[in-house]
Amino acid sequence: MIPQWIIEKKRDGGVLDDAEIRAFIEGYTSGAIPDYQMSALAMAIFFSGMTPGETASLTDAMMRSGDLVTFDDWPRPTADKHSTGGIGDKLSLMIAPLAAAAGLAVPMISGRGLGITGGTLDKLDAIPGYDTRLPIARFKDIVAAVGCSIIGQTDRLAPADKKLYALRDVTGTVPSIPLITASIMSKKLAEGAAILVFDVKCGRAAFMRTPGQAQALADSLTRAGDALGRKTAALITEMDRPLGRTVGNALEVAEAIETLRGGGPPDTRRLTLELTARMTTLGGIHPDLETARGGLAELLDNGGALDVFRRMVEAHGGAPGIVDAPHLLPRAKVVVEVGAPRAGYVTDVDALAIGRLVLRLGGGRTKADGAIDYAAGIDRLVQAGDYVERGAPLMRLHAATPPPPPDPSSF
Amino acid sequence: MIPQWIIEKKRDGGVLDDAEIRAFIEGYTSGAIPDYQMSALAMAIFFSGMTPGETASLTDAMMRSGDLVTFDDWPRPTADKHSTGGIGDKLSLMIAPLAAAAGLAVPMISGRGLGITGGTLDKLDAIPGYDTRLPIARFKDIVAAVGCSIIGQTDRLAPADKKLYALRDVTGTVPSIPLITASIMSKKLAEGAAILVFDVKCGRAAFMRTPGQAQALADSLTRAGDALGRKTAALITEMDRPLGRTVGNALEVAEAIETLRGGGPPDTRRLTLELTARMTTLGGIHPDLETARGGLAELLDNGGALDVFRRMVEAHGGAPGIVDAPHLLPRAKVVVEVGAPRAGYVTDVDALAIGRLVLRLGGGRTKADGAIDYAAGIDRLVQAGDYVERGAPLMRLHAATPPPPPDPSSF
Repeated sequence: MIPQWIIEKKRDGGVLDDAEIRAFIEGYTSGAIPDYQMSALAMAIFFSGMTPGETASLTDAMMRSGDLVTFDDWPRPTADKHSTGGIGDKLSLMIAPLAAAAGLAVPMISGRGLGITGGTLDKLDAIPGYDTRLPIARFKDIVAAVGCSIIGQTDRLAPADKKLYALRDVTGTVPSIPLITASIMSKKLAEGAAILVFDVKCGRAAFMRTPGQAQALADSLTRAGDALGRKTAALITEMDRPLGRTVGNALEVAEAIETLRGGGPPDTRRLTLELTARMTTLGGIHPDLETARGGLAELLDNGGALDVFRRMVEAHGGAPGIVDAPHLLPRAKVVVEVGAPRAGYVTDVDALAIGRLVLRLGGGRTKADGAIDYAAGIDRLVQAGDYVERGAPLMRLHAATPPPPPDPSSF
Repeated sequence: MIPQWIIEKKRDGGVLDDAEIRAFIEGYTSGAIPDYQMSALAMAIFFSGMTPGETASLTDAMMRSGDLVTFDDWPRPTADKHSTGGIGDKLSLMIAPLAAAAGLAVPMISGRGLGITGGTLDKLDAIPGYDTRLPIARFKDIVAAVGCSIIGQTDRLAPADKKLYALRDVTGTVPSIPLITASIMSKKLAEGAAILVFDVKCGRAAFMRTPGQAQALADSLTRAGDALGRKTAALITEMDRPLGRTVGNALEVAEAIETLRGGGPPDTRRLTLELTARMTTLGGIHPDLETARGGLAELLDNGGALDVFRRMVEAHGGAPGIVDAPHLLPRAKVVVEVGAPRAGYVTDVDALAIGRLVLRLGGGRTKADGAIDYAAGIDRLVQAGDYVERGAPLMRLHAATPPPPPDPSSF
């Protein structure tokens, strides 16, 4: 196996066979194939694309580059959800306990946020005491006992992805559907869930800007999952506007708890139900989506999902008291209202502008190892369709120091 | 300057500005930009191409990555020739002294051969005592005294090219017209010649297989040279069949001397005259090509060019006696005739097959630091149009050990 022959084959539009892809990824993981050959192949893949078969081989090879979590012979179907990332997207915090309350086992391994994208892991880190760095054995124990667990990615799951992702980030090879697919799927498959539901965001604050791009990624993800023996579904959801009325880690945890109590903003509740309904129907818990929506809504309204969330937090060493007293979450020193410059109906809220604002408030990271202010962010954010009086709040800003005034023209 | 932004711009079809290209090449040369970003950019250039302006910037930046040889205020016009490489191409050995005999100064810096391509440097190394590793000052002295000098590339001329060429070789990014142009031109421009004539080979044993590809490279080379203030010309010449009747280092030196004596195979003499005529007309030595051909033919026939060659060999420490006694060149232990399987006219000689055969005989390198048998090769090779009797020689093989019989079907 001569690495440059494989690069040249892909460069010239050829279809790589399973053995070639596997040898390349194994060589890259071990260090036998250097970064400069991997980045050249990644750029060739960007231009020449990959067939569904090649994408499945790449995914499988990257999945097998490290440890595999297995849930063979478990009594409950295992399921997970993955979102491509959006502003105000705290859905994992509700979906994991809700799906578990409905009867699924949810082993969820999540990532951190970077730039305007929020990461589920950062939200969990905002819960005092919650430990996201548990060993896999303990993770499985919690899934067995509570029904769900959310931890951070370990170095031993899909290490090829960790290495390749860092390389793609600095070599202009991020926006490639096969590479994105293999990156997402290799991690998700390594964590062992039999059912995978994808929330592919589409819009100005999403990685996929157009419906066509989002559909292509959704198709690629489900095809790769199907090819590798998983049950999959994908929803394409709008990410022009923020999800819910909060953006920022601790503030989003509070909104998640509110939603788990049967409240929360309607868009947040609706999408939570839609995604979880895909998981429970694929898992055979509910016979159809209509029944699933009803059953799951009941678990939000009767506290069943909240109870699982409380037990998950407790199992991870977190303070279960935050469930009933969200004011125990980290709180910002400065809370400032932003008043409407004039009265009227809100026609739009730009998720990209909101995401950037939260970054400036300290609620996000500008580099991979950057610090984060868990208390920083926005709440009480208006949504499109809301009516506001002149001077009435458009949102509240939470920060460690008084923020520079935001530009109202961006809302 | 964020390297990945430049990669992304080129990936997305953008036109890089001079400052971006310069910053990238400077960063790569110094080591600030790692190989994996350079290989990703090279692959993006392979797919997205470069404008003539970008190619000129890239060439100039690579040229300026190291020392520059200058010939300001020299009494004679400086000129050089570059060939993209062919089987049996020993033309530099005749062109440098012939052009010098006509009144040009020829500072020629040549490379080694790899694979089936022969390198002028290897041919010179076949001359006992000839030193190709002279310092630049001594090189210039010889050009001033003799009219021409041929040495090997130093680490200090266009080091960016040396680094990038090695990287392209293992990352599938060799066949890109802008990258080939910058590689060739940066070295040639660094050596200081004001006039550059290109011999772009086209055919089954050439890097450029089709006339379209060859024309594109010829245009790119001359455009970059013109943009950077040189006088240029390019010929596209056939490389389906070997040039001349010898292939192999010492054997080609002997044929070069034969040609410098006014003999040699007609194709070899003709191309020598055509290329040199471009140099002398661009240099103002001859008013037009017709006059140039006549004047240069006379310098081959009257020993003028041979005399310059003899003095060049001597100035480099080589044995000038080889000019009059080519049997003093390295000689192979085994010389075997290959007989024609039947009588008839030779309709074709496959340069690719001949090149591979010489490689097997030990006359070439399979890797960059591989050893070479200077005596190995082929002579008395038939040419298309020759009539041969059954059993009469098609060629003679020269090797250190008896070679495996070649497959006559490949001729």
